[in-house]
Amino acid sequence: MNLPDSIKKLVEKLSELPSIGPRQATRLVFYLISRGQDEIRSLANGIKLLEEVKLCSHCFFIHQNAGNVCSICDDKNRNQKLIAIIEKETDLISIENTRKFNGRYFVLGLIPKTGILEGWQKLRLQNLKSFIQKNLEEQADEIILAFNPTSNGDFNASLLIKELSPITKKITRLGRGLPTGGEIEFADDETLGEALVKRS
Amino acid sequence: MNLPDSIKKLVEKLSELPSIGPRQATRLVFYLISRGQDEIRSLANGIKLLEEVKLCSHCFFIHQNAGNVCSICDDKNRNQKLIAIIEKETDLISIENTRKFNGRYFVLGLIPKTGILEGWQKLRLQNLKSFIQKNLEEQADEIILAFNPTSNGDFNASLLIKELSPITKKITRLGRGLPTGGEIEFADDETLGEALVKRS
Repeated sequence: MNLPDSIKKLVEKLSELPSIGPRQATRLVFYLISRGQDEIRSLANGIKLLEEVKLCSHCFFIHQNAGNVCSICDDKNRNQKLIAIIEKETDLISIENTRKFNGRYFVLGLIPKTGILEGWQKLRLQNLKSFIQKNLEEQADEIILAFNPTSNGDFNASLLIKELSPITKKITRLGRGLPTGGEIEFADDETLGEALVKRS
Repeated sequence: MNLPDSIKKLVEKLSELPSIGPRQATRLVFYLISRGQDEIRSLANGIKLLEEVKLCSHCFFIHQNAGNVCSICDDKNRNQKLIAIIEKETDLISIENTRKFNGRYFVLGLIPKTGILEGWQKLRLQNLKSFIQKNLEEQADEIILAFNPTSNGDFNASLLIKELSPITKKITRLGRGLPTGGEIEFADDETLGEALVKRS
Protein backbone atom coordinates (compact mmCIF):
# COMPACT_ATOMS: atom_id res chain seq x y z
CA MET A 1 0.00 0.00 0.00
CA ASN A 2 1.04 3.61 -0.45
CA LEU A 3 2.48 5.10 2.72
CA PRO A 4 3.56 8.76 2.86
CA ASP A 5 7.02 9.32 1.38
CA SER A 6 8.55 10.49 4.64
CA ILE A 7 7.60 7.18 6.24
CA LYS A 8 8.77 5.02 3.34
CA LYS A 9 12.15 6.74 3.28
CA LEU A 10 12.64 6.47 7.02
CA VAL A 11 11.72 2.77 6.98
CA GLU A 12 14.36 2.24 4.26
CA LYS A 13 16.92 4.19 6.22
CA LEU A 14 16.24 2.32 9.47
CA SER A 15 16.35 -1.02 7.63
CA GLU A 16 19.96 -0.28 6.70
CA LEU A 17 20.97 -0.27 10.37
CA PRO A 18 22.56 -3.48 11.67
CA SER A 19 20.07 -6.15 12.80
CA ILE A 20 17.00 -4.04 11.98
CA GLY A 21 14.84 -5.50 9.20
CA PRO A 22 12.09 -3.73 7.23
CA ARG A 23 9.41 -5.16 9.52
CA GLN A 24 11.00 -3.86 12.73
CA ALA A 25 11.78 -0.57 10.97
CA THR A 26 8.08 -0.13 10.14
CA ARG A 27 7.08 -0.95 13.70
CA LEU A 28 9.63 1.55 15.03
CA VAL A 29 8.28 4.33 12.80
CA PHE A 30 4.68 3.77 13.91
CA TYR A 31 5.82 3.55 17.50
CA LEU A 32 7.59 6.90 17.20
CA ILE A 33 4.54 8.53 15.63
CA SER A 34 2.37 7.20 18.44
CA ARG A 35 4.73 8.74 21.03
CA GLY A 36 4.09 12.23 19.67
CA GLN A 37 6.08 15.21 18.47
CA ASP A 38 8.12 15.78 21.63
CA GLU A 39 9.54 12.25 21.57
CA ILE A 40 10.21 12.44 17.84
CA ARG A 41 12.07 15.73 18.18
CA SER A 42 14.04 14.52 21.19
CA LEU A 43 15.23 11.37 19.37
CA ALA A 44 16.10 13.33 16.22
CA ASN A 45 18.09 15.84 18.27
CA GLY A 46 19.82 13.06 20.22
CA ILE A 47 20.99 11.50 16.96
CA LYS A 48 22.06 14.88 15.59
CA LEU A 49 24.35 15.34 18.60
CA LEU A 50 26.42 12.38 17.37
CA GLU A 51 27.76 14.73 14.69
CA GLU A 52 29.88 16.29 17.43
CA VAL A 53 31.53 13.03 18.45
CA LYS A 54 35.18 12.86 17.39
CA LEU A 55 37.55 9.91 16.86
CA CYS A 56 40.76 9.78 18.89
CA SER A 57 43.74 10.39 16.62
CA HIS A 58 45.70 7.63 18.39
CA CYS A 59 43.26 4.78 19.01
CA PHE A 60 40.20 5.79 16.91
CA PHE A 61 37.82 5.37 19.84
CA ILE A 62 35.16 8.07 20.18
CA HIS A 63 35.52 11.08 22.46
CA GLN A 64 34.26 14.62 22.98
CA ASN A 65 37.35 16.17 24.53
CA ALA A 66 38.68 19.57 23.48
CA GLY A 67 41.81 18.08 21.88
CA ASN A 68 42.22 15.20 19.43
CA VAL A 69 42.92 12.46 21.94
CA CYS A 70 40.47 10.34 23.98
CA SER A 71 40.59 10.20 27.78
CA ILE A 72 42.14 6.73 27.79
CA CYS A 73 45.03 7.66 25.46
CA ASP A 74 45.42 10.89 27.41
CA ASP A 75 45.72 9.12 30.78
CA LYS A 76 49.36 9.27 31.89
CA ASN A 77 48.74 6.53 34.48
CA ARG A 78 48.02 3.98 31.77
CA ASN A 79 50.74 1.84 30.25
CA GLN A 80 51.36 3.33 26.80
CA LYS A 81 53.37 0.30 25.69
CA LEU A 82 50.59 -2.23 26.19
CA ILE A 83 48.04 -2.03 23.36
CA ALA A 84 44.85 -4.08 22.90
CA ILE A 85 43.67 -4.19 19.29
CA ILE A 86 39.89 -4.59 19.17
CA GLU A 87 37.41 -4.87 16.32
CA LYS A 88 34.39 -3.18 17.87
CA GLU A 89 34.02 -0.18 20.18
CA THR A 90 31.66 -2.28 22.30
CA ASP A 91 34.50 -4.78 22.88
CA LEU A 92 36.56 -1.89 24.26
CA ILE A 93 33.73 -1.03 26.65
CA SER A 94 33.47 -4.68 27.76
CA ILE A 95 37.21 -4.91 28.44
CA GLU A 96 37.24 -1.52 30.18
CA ASN A 97 34.38 -2.62 32.42
CA THR A 98 36.47 -5.52 33.80
CA ARG A 99 38.84 -2.91 35.33
CA LYS A 100 41.64 -5.44 34.75
CA PHE A 101 43.37 -3.66 31.87
CA ASN A 102 45.68 -0.72 32.33
CA GLY A 103 47.00 -0.39 28.78
CA ARG A 104 45.68 1.44 25.75
CA TYR A 105 43.44 0.39 22.91
CA PHE A 106 43.43 0.46 19.16
CA VAL A 107 40.09 0.22 17.31
CA LEU A 108 40.67 -1.60 14.03
CA GLY A 109 37.01 -1.97 13.06
CA LEU A 110 35.29 -5.20 11.98
CA ILE A 111 37.66 -7.19 9.79
CA PRO A 112 35.88 -8.31 6.58
CA LYS A 113 35.17 -12.06 6.24
CA THR A 114 37.81 -12.25 3.48
CA GLY A 115 40.50 -11.24 5.97
CA ILE A 116 41.51 -8.40 3.64
CA LEU A 117 41.48 -5.08 5.48
CA GLU A 118 39.54 -2.14 4.02
CA GLY A 119 41.49 0.93 2.91
CA TRP A 120 40.61 2.90 6.05
CA GLN A 121 41.68 -0.01 8.24
CA LYS A 122 45.08 -0.12 6.53
CA LEU A 123 45.42 3.62 7.17
CA ARG A 124 44.61 3.07 10.84
CA LEU A 125 47.24 0.33 11.11
CA GLN A 126 49.75 2.60 9.42
CA ASN A 127 48.89 5.23 12.00
CA LEU A 128 49.50 2.70 14.80
CA LYS A 129 52.89 1.80 13.36
CA SER A 130 54.03 5.43 13.12
CA PHE A 131 52.77 6.06 16.66
CA ILE A 132 54.79 3.15 18.00
CA GLN A 133 57.88 4.14 16.03
CA LYS A 134 57.73 7.76 17.14
CA ASN A 135 56.48 7.52 20.70
CA LEU A 136 57.48 4.07 21.96
CA GLU A 137 61.05 3.88 20.63
CA GLU A 138 60.25 1.55 17.73
CA GLN A 139 58.49 -1.20 19.72
CA ALA A 140 55.52 -1.72 22.01
CA ASP A 141 55.98 -4.08 24.97
CA GLU A 142 52.90 -6.11 24.12
CA ILE A 143 50.05 -6.06 21.63
CA ILE A 144 46.95 -8.06 22.58
CA LEU A 145 44.87 -9.16 19.60
CA ALA A 146 41.56 -9.03 21.48
CA PHE A 147 39.45 -10.68 18.77
CA ASN A 148 36.56 -13.08 19.33
CA PRO A 149 37.59 -16.64 20.27
CA THR A 150 36.18 -18.00 17.00
CA SER A 151 37.79 -19.59 13.97
CA ASN A 152 37.24 -16.24 12.25
CA GLY A 153 39.03 -14.40 15.06
CA ASP A 154 41.88 -16.96 14.92
CA PHE A 155 42.22 -16.44 11.17
CA ASN A 156 42.33 -12.66 11.51
CA ALA A 157 44.87 -12.86 14.31
CA SER A 158 47.15 -15.10 12.22
CA LEU A 159 47.06 -12.54 9.40
CA LEU A 160 47.94 -9.64 11.67
CA ILE A 161 50.72 -11.37 13.59
CA LYS A 162 53.17 -11.11 10.66
CA GLU A 163 52.36 -7.49 10.10
CA LEU A 164 52.71 -6.48 13.74
CA SER A 165 55.70 -8.54 14.89
CA PRO A 166 58.29 -5.88 13.83
CA ILE A 167 56.68 -3.26 16.06
CA THR A 168 56.10 -5.18 19.30
CA LYS A 169 58.12 -7.40 21.62
CA LYS A 170 55.21 -9.72 22.31
CA ILE A 171 51.86 -10.53 20.67
CA THR A 172 49.17 -12.23 22.76
CA ARG A 173 45.49 -13.15 22.53
CA LEU A 174 42.80 -13.38 25.22
CA GLY A 175 42.91 -16.55 27.35
CA ARG A 176 40.81 -19.54 26.35
CA GLY A 177 39.04 -21.91 28.69
CA LEU A 178 35.87 -22.49 30.68
CA PRO A 179 33.80 -19.35 31.25
CA THR A 180 33.69 -18.43 34.95
CA GLY A 181 30.46 -19.70 36.52
CA GLY A 182 30.00 -22.31 33.78
CA GLU A 183 29.70 -26.06 34.25
CA ILE A 184 32.04 -28.65 32.75
CA GLU A 185 29.01 -30.79 31.81
CA PHE A 186 27.71 -28.11 29.48
CA ALA A 187 31.00 -26.98 27.95
CA ASP A 188 31.40 -27.82 24.26
CA ASP A 189 34.29 -30.09 23.22
CA GLU A 190 36.36 -27.24 21.76
CA THR A 191 36.13 -25.14 24.91
CA LEU A 192 36.84 -28.04 27.27
CA GLY A 193 39.75 -29.09 25.06
CA GLU A 194 41.24 -25.60 25.18
CA ALA A 195 40.72 -25.53 28.95
CA LEU A 196 42.76 -28.75 29.25
CA VAL A 197 45.55 -27.52 27.00
CA LYS A 198 45.69 -24.11 28.71
CA ARG A 199 45.35 -25.49 32.26
CA SER A 200 47.24 -23.50 34.86
CA MET B 1 33.22 3.05 31.68
CA ASN B 2 32.50 6.71 31.14
CA LEU B 3 31.14 7.41 27.67
CA PRO B 4 30.35 10.98 26.53
CA ASP B 5 26.96 12.19 27.77
CA SER B 6 25.48 12.53 24.30
CA ILE B 7 26.13 8.84 23.67
CA LYS B 8 24.84 7.66 27.04
CA LYS B 9 21.59 9.60 26.61
CA LEU B 10 21.04 8.36 23.06
CA VAL B 11 21.66 4.76 24.12
CA GLU B 12 19.04 5.19 26.84
CA LYS B 13 16.59 6.72 24.40
CA LEU B 14 17.08 4.00 21.78
CA SER B 15 16.73 1.31 24.47
CA GLU B 16 13.21 2.56 25.13
CA LEU B 17 12.16 1.63 21.59
CA PRO B 18 10.31 -1.68 21.19
CA SER B 19 12.58 -4.75 20.86
CA ILE B 20 15.80 -2.73 21.11
CA GLY B 21 17.89 -3.53 24.19
CA PRO B 22 20.77 -1.52 25.64
CA ARG B 23 23.32 -3.73 23.85
CA GLN B 24 21.79 -3.22 20.40
CA ALA B 25 21.30 0.47 21.18
CA THR B 26 25.03 0.83 21.91
CA ARG B 27 25.93 -1.01 18.70
CA LEU B 28 23.58 1.24 16.72
CA VAL B 29 25.16 4.39 18.12
CA PHE B 30 28.69 3.27 17.24
CA TYR B 31 27.51 2.17 13.82
CA LEU B 32 26.01 5.62 13.19
CA ILE B 33 29.18 7.38 14.30
CA SER B 34 31.20 5.16 11.95
CA ARG B 35 28.96 6.13 9.03
CA GLY B 36 29.90 9.77 9.40
CA GLN B 37 28.16 13.13 9.75
CA ASP B 38 26.12 12.98 6.52
CA GLU B 39 24.44 9.72 7.51
CA ILE B 40 23.83 10.96 11.06
CA ARG B 41 22.22 14.17 9.82
CA SER B 42 20.14 12.36 7.23
CA LEU B 43 18.73 9.91 9.81
CA ALA B 44 18.05 12.72 12.32
CA ASN B 45 16.24 14.73 9.64
CA GLY B 46 14.27 11.67 8.50
CA ILE B 47 13.01 11.13 12.04
CA LYS B 48 12.23 14.82 12.45
CA LEU B 49 9.95 14.63 9.40
CA LEU B 50 7.67 12.29 11.37
CA GLU B 51 6.56 15.37 13.30
CA GLU B 52 4.54 16.31 10.24
CA VAL B 53 2.63 13.02 10.12
CA LYS B 54 -1.02 13.44 11.12
CA LEU B 55 -3.61 10.97 12.41
CA CYS B 56 -6.83 10.55 10.41
CA SER B 57 -9.74 11.98 12.38
CA HIS B 58 -11.94 9.02 11.37
CA CYS B 59 -9.76 5.93 11.58
CA PHE B 60 -6.62 7.22 13.39
CA PHE B 61 -4.29 5.83 10.73
CA ILE B 62 -1.41 8.09 9.71
CA HIS B 63 -1.53 10.40 6.70
CA GLN B 64 0.01 13.55 5.26
CA ASN B 65 -2.94 14.89 3.31
CA ALA B 66 -3.98 18.53 3.41
CA GLY B 67 -7.22 17.78 5.29
CA ASN B 68 -7.85 15.72 8.42
CA VAL B 69 -8.80 12.48 6.72
CA CYS B 70 -6.55 9.69 5.35
CA SER B 71 -6.69 8.55 1.72
CA ILE B 72 -8.54 5.34 2.61
CA CYS B 73 -11.33 7.08 4.55
CA ASP B 74 -11.46 9.71 1.82
CA ASP B 75 -11.92 7.14 -0.97
CA LYS B 76 -15.56 7.26 -2.07
CA ASN B 77 -15.19 3.90 -3.84
CA ARG B 78 -14.67 2.10 -0.57
CA ASN B 79 -17.53 0.69 1.44
CA GLN B 80 -18.00 3.13 4.34
CA LYS B 81 -20.24 0.68 6.19
CA LEU B 82 -17.69 -2.11 6.43
CA ILE B 83 -15.12 -1.39 9.15
CA ALA B 84 -12.11 -3.48 10.20
CA ILE B 85 -10.91 -2.72 13.72
CA ILE B 86 -7.19 -3.40 14.01
CA GLU B 87 -4.72 -3.11 16.86
CA LYS B 88 -1.56 -2.15 14.97
CA GLU B 89 -0.97 0.08 11.95
CA THR B 90 1.21 -2.70 10.51
CA ASP B 91 -1.85 -5.01 10.58
CA LEU B 92 -3.68 -2.46 8.41
CA ILE B 93 -0.80 -2.50 5.94
CA SER B 94 -0.86 -6.32 5.84
CA ILE B 95 -4.62 -6.41 5.19
CA GLU B 96 -4.38 -3.64 2.62
CA ASN B 97 -1.63 -5.54 0.79
CA THR B 98 -3.98 -8.51 0.22
CA ARG B 99 -6.15 -6.23 -2.01
CA LYS B 100 -9.13 -8.25 -0.78
CA PHE B 101 -10.67 -5.63 1.46
CA ASN B 102 -12.72 -2.74 0.22
CA GLY B 103 -14.00 -1.37 3.50
CA ARG B 104 -12.50 1.10 5.95
CA TYR B 105 -10.32 0.67 9.02
CA PHE B 106 -10.27 1.76 12.60
CA VAL B 107 -6.97 1.74 14.50
CA LEU B 108 -7.68 0.93 18.13
CA GLY B 109 -4.06 0.52 19.24
CA LEU B 110 -2.62 -2.42 21.19
CA ILE B 111 -5.14 -3.55 23.79
CA PRO B 112 -3.42 -3.93 27.20
CA LYS B 113 -3.03 -7.49 28.54
CA THR B 114 -5.65 -6.71 31.21
CA GLY B 115 -8.27 -6.19 28.51
CA ILE B 116 -9.03 -2.75 29.97
CA LEU B 117 -8.71 -0.06 27.31
CA GLU B 118 -6.55 2.99 27.95
CA GLY B 119 -8.20 6.38 28.17
CA TRP B 120 -7.18 7.38 24.63
CA GLN B 121 -8.51 4.08 23.28
CA LYS B 122 -11.88 4.73 24.90
CA LEU B 123 -11.92 8.16 23.29
CA ARG B 124 -11.20 6.59 19.91
CA LEU B 125 -14.05 4.10 20.32
CA GLN B 126 -16.34 6.97 21.33
CA ASN B 127 -15.28 8.72 18.14
CA LEU B 128 -16.12 5.59 16.10
CA LYS B 129 -19.57 5.40 17.69
CA SER B 130 -20.40 9.03 16.92
CA PHE B 131 -19.11 8.59 13.36
CA ILE B 132 -21.39 5.60 12.81
CA GLN B 133 -24.36 7.32 14.40
CA LYS B 134 -23.93 10.50 12.37
CA ASN B 135 -22.72 9.20 9.01
CA LEU B 136 -24.01 5.65 8.72
CA GLU B 137 -27.57 6.11 10.01
CA GLU B 138 -26.94 4.60 13.44
CA GLN B 139 -25.45 1.29 12.26
CA ALA B 140 -22.54 -0.08 10.24
CA ASP B 141 -23.21 -3.09 8.03
CA GLU B 142 -20.33 -5.07 9.45
CA ILE B 143 -17.47 -4.61 11.87
CA ILE B 144 -14.55 -7.04 11.54
CA LEU B 145 -12.55 -7.46 14.74
CA ALA B 146 -9.25 -8.12 12.96
CA PHE B 147 -7.29 -9.15 16.04
CA ASN B 148 -4.60 -11.83 16.17
CA PRO B 149 -5.92 -15.43 16.22
CA THR B 150 -4.62 -15.97 19.76
CA SER B 151 -6.35 -16.54 23.09
CA ASN B 152 -5.52 -12.92 23.85
CA GLY B 153 -7.15 -11.77 20.63
CA ASP B 154 -10.20 -13.94 21.38
CA PHE B 155 -10.47 -12.41 24.83
CA ASN B 156 -10.25 -8.86 23.51
CA ALA B 157 -12.83 -9.61 20.83
CA SER B 158 -15.26 -11.00 23.39
CA LEU B 159 -14.94 -7.80 25.43
CA LEU B 160 -15.60 -5.55 22.45
CA ILE B 161 -18.53 -7.49 20.99
CA LYS B 162 -20.90 -6.28 23.74
CA GLU B 163 -19.81 -2.69 23.33
CA LEU B 164 -20.10 -2.67 19.55
CA SER B 165 -23.26 -4.69 18.94
CA PRO B 166 -25.61 -1.64 19.21
CA ILE B 167 -23.79 0.14 16.36
CA THR B 168 -23.41 -2.63 13.78
CA LYS B 169 -25.64 -5.22 12.10
CA LYS B 170 -22.93 -7.86 12.12
CA ILE B 171 -19.65 -8.49 13.96
CA THR B 172 -17.12 -10.90 12.46
CA ARG B 173 -13.54 -12.03 12.95
CA LEU B 174 -10.88 -13.20 10.49
CA GLY B 175 -11.28 -16.81 9.29
CA ARG B 176 -9.44 -19.59 11.12
CA GLY B 177 -7.93 -22.64 9.54
CA LEU B 178 -4.85 -24.01 7.81
CA PRO B 179 -2.51 -21.32 6.44
CA THR B 180 -2.34 -21.45 2.64
CA GLY B 181 0.72 -23.38 1.51
CA GLY B 182 1.01 -25.16 4.86
CA GLU B 183 0.96 -28.92 5.44
CA ILE B 184 -1.59 -30.81 7.54
CA GLU B 185 1.25 -32.86 9.06
CA PHE B 186 2.82 -29.77 10.61
CA ALA B 187 -0.36 -27.99 11.72
CA ASP B 188 -0.79 -27.76 15.48
CA ASP B 189 -3.84 -29.39 17.08
CA GLU B 190 -5.66 -26.10 17.67
CA THR B 191 -5.28 -24.96 14.06
CA LEU B 192 -6.27 -28.31 12.60
CA GLY B 193 -9.22 -28.49 14.96
CA GLU B 194 -10.42 -25.04 13.86
CA ALA B 195 -9.93 -26.04 10.22
CA LEU B 196 -12.24 -29.01 10.79
CA VAL B 197 -14.90 -27.00 12.57
CA LYS B 198 -14.75 -24.17 10.01
CA ARG B 199 -14.58 -26.50 6.98
CA SER B 200 -16.31 -25.14 3.90
